[in-house]
Amino acid sequence: MTYENRLQEVISTVAPVDINREKAAWQRQDSLTKPPRSLGVLEQLAVRMAVIQKTVRPQASERAIVLMAGDHGVVAEGVSPYPAEVTCQMIANFAADGAAINQLAAQASASLVLVDVGVAGDVSAVKGVRAAKVRPGTANMALGPAMTREQAAQAVLVGVQIVEELVARGVVIIGTGEMGIGNTTAAAALTAAFTGADPTGVVGRGTGLDDAGVAHKAAVVRQALMVNDVGSLDPLGVLAAVGGLEIAGLAGVFIGAAAHGVAAVADGFISGAALLSATRLCPASADYAFPSHRSVEPGHSVLLGALGLRPLLELDMRLGEGTGAAIAMQLIGDACAVMSGMATFEDAGVSGEEDHDA
Amino acid sequence: MTYENRLQEVISTVAPVDINREKAAWQRQDSLTKPPRSLGVLEQLAVRMAVIQKTVRPQASERAIVLMAGDHGVVAEGVSPYPAEVTCQMIANFAADGAAINQLAAQASASLVLVDVGVAGDVSAVKGVRAAKVRPGTANMALGPAMTREQAAQAVLVGVQIVEELVARGVVIIGTGEMGIGNTTAAAALTAAFTGADPTGVVGRGTGLDDAGVAHKAAVVRQALMVNDVGSLDPLGVLAAVGGLEIAGLAGVFIGAAAHGVAAVADGFISGAALLSATRLCPASADYAFPSHRSVEPGHSVLLGALGLRPLLELDMRLGEGTGAAIAMQLIGDACAVMSGMATFEDAGVSGEEDHDA
Repeated sequence: MTYENRLQEVISTVAPVDINREKAAWQRQDSLTKPPRSLGVLEQLAVRMAVIQKTVRPQASERAIVLMAGDHGVVAEGVSPYPAEVTCQMIANFAADGAAINQLAAQASASLVLVDVGVAGDVSAVKGVRAAKVRPGTANMALGPAMTREQAAQAVLVGVQIVEELVARGVVIIGTGEMGIGNTTAAAALTAAFTGADPTGVVGRGTGLDDAGVAHKAAVVRQALMVNDVGSLDPLGVLAAVGGLEIAGLAGVFIGAAAHGVAAVADGFISGAALLSATRLCPASADYAFPSHRSVEPGHSVLLGALGLRPLLELDMRLGEGTGAAIAMQLIGDACAVMSGMATFEDAGVSGEEDHDA
Repeated sequence: MTYENRLQEVISTVAPVDINREKAAWQRQDSLTKPPRSLGVLEQLAVRMAVIQKTVRPQASERAIVLMAGDHGVVAEGVSPYPAEVTCQMIANFAADGAAINQLAAQASASLVLVDVGVAGDVSAVKGVRAAKVRPGTANMALGPAMTREQAAQAVLVGVQIVEELVARGVVIIGTGEMGIGNTTAAAALTAAFTGADPTGVVGRGTGLDDAGVAHKAAVVRQALMVNDVGSLDPLGVLAAVGGLEIAGLAGVFIGAAAHGVAAVADGFISGAALLSATRLCPASADYAFPSHRSVEPGHSVLLGALGLRPLLELDMRLGEGTGAAIAMQLIGDACAVMSGMATFEDAGVSGEEDHDA
């Protein structure tokens, strides 16, 4: 059986959430000792978690962040100010607890799952990194497909498999994160391909390009879209042509989360491109996905608009690694704690609006 | 010695932060294994904490939320859809762990300090409530001053005293919260008095007024400003004339935090009015204060603008109690953990931008 067929099987098991469950969830929210809807977005988050978990007392206590790493052949075009070796160096840094995501995952009480789905270098000696390399980096998308359809499907299935294991361990909410020098270029290309946006509207500074670098990056994306004739491709074809291995892996995390009925949280632009890819491969997976922050990368706003998502946070972040997801998971945890733990007006003997005629 | 003289003594001890410390703080931030400034606002929060704490490794582990409760004579004008008894009922609910802030304080690992600084009813039998009643609710500000100058100064000193005790216990960051039926009217009056904004621009729905109710509330605020001739008053006079006991108490929390060199976090509109009052009484106290969210109450945006603060969160919240502060404290804790716990490029052997010439 091909990876593509196996992926189609997984996708066929994904069902949308039962939106009829919202009514009971809102009834519980409105029975709690606060003016109705006075916690705004926090109440909406908890209601969505309630619907996903098929309960009126949702919880988000068991948390994990899946950080997928992969390299990008397109760095040969000079699209990043950092050398590709940084991907390997940062994996060692993640494993040694030295990166931003290590601190933020700890603050969010989330376990961190590091996955090599396509790093160019050899990181097999780094302790704590899951070996799931589909290929050692993608090919240069400016010259042809970044990978084959089978490789793209295989990378997506890596994400699905990891979610399956996390769910078996009791995890109920999964954050997404990534590392891969050059991956804002792939995210920009996917965003342009899936939304029809012009490359100039979806490229940004990444880890630190100047204006000329940004213009060059847009030209590289435009070339990749043309060389691969992305308009003629289906979603898996687009992901293979101009995606990345870590992006495909994270698309699998979103699809796997939906398949198992657990929540998944997008991080910034690259995780967002993974979510966009997931929803094109499997539209119902959108029901289980939460946005986190709005990255300063301009393509992220285009992508959030296409997904119809309002980010929870606008903190001018652009790091990736799952840093925004870690923060958003705290907010979703807050939202669930409120909905599940508060007293009702009746329990607490507090007068509601209706008890008063002034 | 009068309360006012004692308050002036406290204010005279408050020094601005030493802004020269920012340079060393940013040097540490920029040495950490992330593209420079890629964590945006999170980096700025940590740098401010570093300056306040006089270190380049700030921390926000020991947290408390001070929830001040007080009643408002102005409810006689029909400015709230909830009866004043709800203030007492909610205090019992806080003490019984049933309210939103109980859940959120627990999520933020913050202790919750409940203070009766001016509740109209008798809550002395409720366990866990600190008795610091200055008077049983304010007078109706639409007819004359809400309280005397001495009462206002006494209420401010309640907040100062509580901070002193928390700091002695090791608390380094203090959130503010409040409960008091009618207190959005007092917050609106203070905002109008201190900023010169028209009452119609600073009143909102509070816990749930309709359009006619909002128009009436603006008229009540306008009357209170005129009756008390607030334009002729100094900051303590304004606070006494159109403030609230819990608002004055929280102004004391901000001033006390500044006096002890610890951080304080504003919540929504009412806590914001307390911060605005604190900065008018003691301008240097602004250096130690962090905003949290932007409330849907329109006066809150006016107030944040006057303070020059950009809120961290925009989640359409309007509950108070310290709920926004609890969430913001998690963000500030995240920011400090990143700045204090991450590896540097040198430690981790990760190549920076400068090591690469592509």
